[in-house]
Amino acid sequence: MHRFRVWAPNAQTMKLKLANALLAMTGPDKMGWWQLEVADAVPGVDYAYCIDDDETPYPDPRSLWQPNGVHGASRIYDHSSFSWSDATFMAPLLADAIIYELHIGTFISQGTLDAAIGKLEYLVDLGITHVELMPVAAFAGDRGWGYDGVALFAVYEPYGGPDALKRFVDAAHGKGLAVLLDVVYNHFGPVGNYTGKFGPYLVESHRTPWGGAVNLEDAGSCEVRRFFCDNALMWLRDFHLDGLRLDAVHAFIDRSAIHFLEQLSTEVESLAAEQQRRLTLIAESDSNDPRVVTRRASGGWGMDAQWSDDFHHALFSVLNAGPREGYYEDFGALEQLAKAIEETFVYDGIYSRYRDRIHGKVAKGLPQDRFVACIQNHDQVGNRAIGDRLRQIVGFDRARIAAAILATSPFVPLVFQGEEWAASTPFQYFADHDDPEMARAVSNGRKEEFRAFGWDPRSIPDPEAASTLNNSKLDWEEVSRGQHEEMLRWYRELFRLRKSKLSLHGRPPRCPRVTFNEGERWFTIERDDLTIVCNLGLVDRTLAAPFPKKILLASRAGVEIVQDAITLAPDTLIVLG
Amino acid sequence: MHRFRVWAPNAQTMKLKLANALLAMTGPDKMGWWQLEVADAVPGVDYAYCIDDDETPYPDPRSLWQPNGVHGASRIYDHSSFSWSDATFMAPLLADAIIYELHIGTFISQGTLDAAIGKLEYLVDLGITHVELMPVAAFAGDRGWGYDGVALFAVYEPYGGPDALKRFVDAAHGKGLAVLLDVVYNHFGPVGNYTGKFGPYLVESHRTPWGGAVNLEDAGSCEVRRFFCDNALMWLRDFHLDGLRLDAVHAFIDRSAIHFLEQLSTEVESLAAEQQRRLTLIAESDSNDPRVVTRRASGGWGMDAQWSDDFHHALFSVLNAGPREGYYEDFGALEQLAKAIEETFVYDGIYSRYRDRIHGKVAKGLPQDRFVACIQNHDQVGNRAIGDRLRQIVGFDRARIAAAILATSPFVPLVFQGEEWAASTPFQYFADHDDPEMARAVSNGRKEEFRAFGWDPRSIPDPEAASTLNNSKLDWEEVSRGQHEEMLRWYRELFRLRKSKLSLHGRPPRCPRVTFNEGERWFTIERDDLTIVCNLGLVDRTLAAPFPKKILLASRAGVEIVQDAITLAPDTLIVLG
Repeated sequence: MHRFRVWAPNAQTMKLKLANALLAMTGPDKMGWWQLEVADAVPGVDYAYCIDDDETPYPDPRSLWQPNGVHGASRIYDHSSFSWSDATFMAPLLADAIIYELHIGTFISQGTLDAAIGKLEYLVDLGITHVELMPVAAFAGDRGWGYDGVALFAVYEPYGGPDALKRFVDAAHGKGLAVLLDVVYNHFGPVGNYTGKFGPYLVESHRTPWGGAVNLEDAGSCEVRRFFCDNALMWLRDFHLDGLRLDAVHAFIDRSAIHFLEQLSTEVESLAAEQQRRLTLIAESDSNDPRVVTRRASGGWGMDAQWSDDFHHALFSVLNAGPREGYYEDFGALEQLAKAIEETFVYDGIYSRYRDRIHGKVAKGLPQDRFVACIQNHDQVGNRAIGDRLRQIVGFDRARIAAAILATSPFVPLVFQGEEWAASTPFQYFADHDDPEMARAVSNGRKEEFRAFGWDPRSIPDPEAASTLNNSKLDWEEVSRGQHEEMLRWYRELFRLRKSKLSLHGRPPRCPRVTFNEGERWFTIERDDLTIVCNLGLVDRTLAAPFPKKILLASRAGVEIVQDAITLAPDTLIVLG
Repeated sequence: MHRFRVWAPNAQTMKLKLANALLAMTGPDKMGWWQLEVADAVPGVDYAYCIDDDETPYPDPRSLWQPNGVHGASRIYDHSSFSWSDATFMAPLLADAIIYELHIGTFISQGTLDAAIGKLEYLVDLGITHVELMPVAAFAGDRGWGYDGVALFAVYEPYGGPDALKRFVDAAHGKGLAVLLDVVYNHFGPVGNYTGKFGPYLVESHRTPWGGAVNLEDAGSCEVRRFFCDNALMWLRDFHLDGLRLDAVHAFIDRSAIHFLEQLSTEVESLAAEQQRRLTLIAESDSNDPRVVTRRASGGWGMDAQWSDDFHHALFSVLNAGPREGYYEDFGALEQLAKAIEETFVYDGIYSRYRDRIHGKVAKGLPQDRFVACIQNHDQVGNRAIGDRLRQIVGFDRARIAAAILATSPFVPLVFQGEEWAASTPFQYFADHDDPEMARAVSNGRKEEFRAFGWDPRSIPDPEAASTLNNSKLDWEEVSRGQHEEMLRWYRELFRLRKSKLSLHGRPPRCPRVTFNEGERWFTIERDDLTIVCNLGLVDRTLAAPFPKKILLASRAGVEIVQDAITLAPDTLIVLG
């Protein structure tokens, strides 16, 4: 027996298509739901819905399984059939976390969750505590980053479908690794989104970069918010995920007295209490708004953490001498990197030229471990014209310096797949919009976008080509070779240092103090018993005593104390303690 | 000498038109401003701006004086030329306030600020502490409510222009009355708005009931926010206004880390500190969001108060047995009136049928004198088909009951002009859109709107007709006649009681306790040493001792204590204490 339920408040009739039968459903009830109990509908059986006079069968917006893609029938799936072995697992504290962001399709050559299990031990050795999966909710086509999901309750079939995700999480838990999932609640993908047939999931009164905004505040929003909250709860409860990374929450339009994120954090906190688990919500926010990670009782939305781009922008702009386009025009000074490290937000209520408006608000009082920082995430690599990485842009020495600044930062560090061995493979933008017009628009749009920055369009990888995904796959062969191996060793040392020093991730961590010389391009970061010194200038810089007697780590060989002084060559960083 | 400054960040050239000369301005500077100093430009001289190749002269978006209407030239005005006599005035505390909302065009037959001065003594006698003027910023046409303002720094010339407003405020201060001004920052009027020629005051990515949303968060918003903040500061500083009522703040779209209202309250607080004055910001908010009146330090926007409609909706729906249309469908139970009185918001995170969404958030912890309540405001009268008032709808006895409930409420009471004598004149929707197409659209739109509720369109007053304003003018002759006089006496008694009882408006006032019987339609409100008892049922209700021995006020004659009991006829309210 299966009880079908679907929300379609404006439908006049609703039929369940089961095999070749069309069964009339009962509804809508007061809140707009239709339902039907069918005795012989069991897990594995396919179904779809027909609305009003439209004879097209549409997949269930809450489908748990789309074995034939997002346009096909939904399949009944039973969450209770999986045998979990992670009863004793407890996720590490976020304050102690080192996060590894990966994309299943490129992390491992097979591009499946099951294959990725084989690399979990490697991640443990690296020092990772949390794996963060880029979105796995079903999207159209044979490949993609995952941000164009449309069947948000179903696991993308090419990755292995729902059971594969459970196997992955269970295996990770078995190795002591927590798993976070990237979820996209600010829009639906442009292809295969049938939710509009069912109800007011979107409103046209507000436009986002992806079209109408998700309906979080207008008529019907009650059930739309339930849709997303239930989705979050499902991943955490039924897939045992330890947390979610919420894509681009700045794109939400929600002026309700109870913001969607406040509702979500309340519900997730209840689930955590009920299940005695550590569940984490991390928002990607471009607002520089402390409200995001402020506790609800203090008027905030209660996210556990948020991504903080200012650290990346400041660090990248200091390391990269090249032209500063886009948001980089707002950065470039050591003073800004110092401010990012000390106060989290560089733009904290000041004018931003790039945005041509006042941006952000002071976050100084907030614990800095409520912010996730990175050298580069998937966006910052992948949204570059050719998807090249920091190592290719600023060189080996500076990439090592970046890693050390991240690892000793007061933030929760996030590593993007392959960064730890300075992978030579790019991470490019790829998609497979199985709608020829959309595919052409995406391909041309990207070429035009970069032509504006002076690129030859022919050098831009075609996002819709299968080769673009293939080029972006990590080459695990190179891990043990030359500078790659050297970089990996450096990351391991850095993370070992971070884990061994509570001063780096205490709760709450002490605020770092940064001193710098803008003209000579050197700076010093004081973190309790550690001192980080970096020379980005053109000439050697000598550090005279007194300083902590011991060089714990150095970004290049041969740095030593000679007659109570240390000389740092250009592009060198040391950690003293 | 006058220094002309105008913001037009995208203009290529800007010319100042002064008499018949066209003078090239310098600019734009880094923030988009143009300027020019002209030696012989003195107060009283007319000017306008010509942008790029457009030879049409446009009025200054920050014009202080539009003597020939919103389409005409701007005139230089000098704020320092007025002689103020209010140096010793200090505005009463908002917690002690009784506000009187009035519309200059209909409050007094002449329809001018100077004529209205003659009624200030009457308001003092009534017990009023704060006069609230409906908008006076310049709008198109010869009449209107004022919510379609376009020259937001200029006083509507038919009301008397800038000097007349100063004379009014100065006279009010002379009588101890504070003056609040209604300002509209959520949209510009549909006729005569030339700001779009100058800069990105509006964005098209969000739609409001009035068109594109005011640009509070996008590129250029920095200066747009300055425009509105400077406008607020001007009224308070240069016109000596004691506070502002901000129209429909729920229509703002502002996801900046520092919300526009937070910025505004910060700036107004600074001005108040600098000038050692009490300056008040009151928001009209339909969001039931406690954030609006929460202090900034606690994550709020720092408004001193907000209008709270739930009290009105609950009270009106309890008193009016007629069909409940629009938002009234969400109300009607005594339980809701009780909740409004005890907890301010009835919809505090619960589902609203009318809105088809979850509405509001609990406000229980907030002092209730941060909420302004009324029996009916201009909207609630004027947005009725024929603009009839409570007295006409529920009768004299119930109108008296409403007044008593308001006067003994924990909220700051607001009276709408004429309510205090149960004025027989309506307050209808009128406008004069000096654009024939717009006028026709408004007229027809209104007829259609009410046709949907079963009205004969011919019975709906034409909003564009001059007679509709005339019909809405108060008839001061009737004040001293029959039931009008009786009602006025009742209001005076009620406000005298309110002022004499600190329990009614202490800081913070104690939360009232309400008991009620839904079926029998009676209820009791306990407010410290006062007890209000009301019988809205169909039969007499007898109140047995013990109760406070003294009947302080009764809404009808002849109520007395007989053998330790009081019998209340239907539609009677008493205040015991």
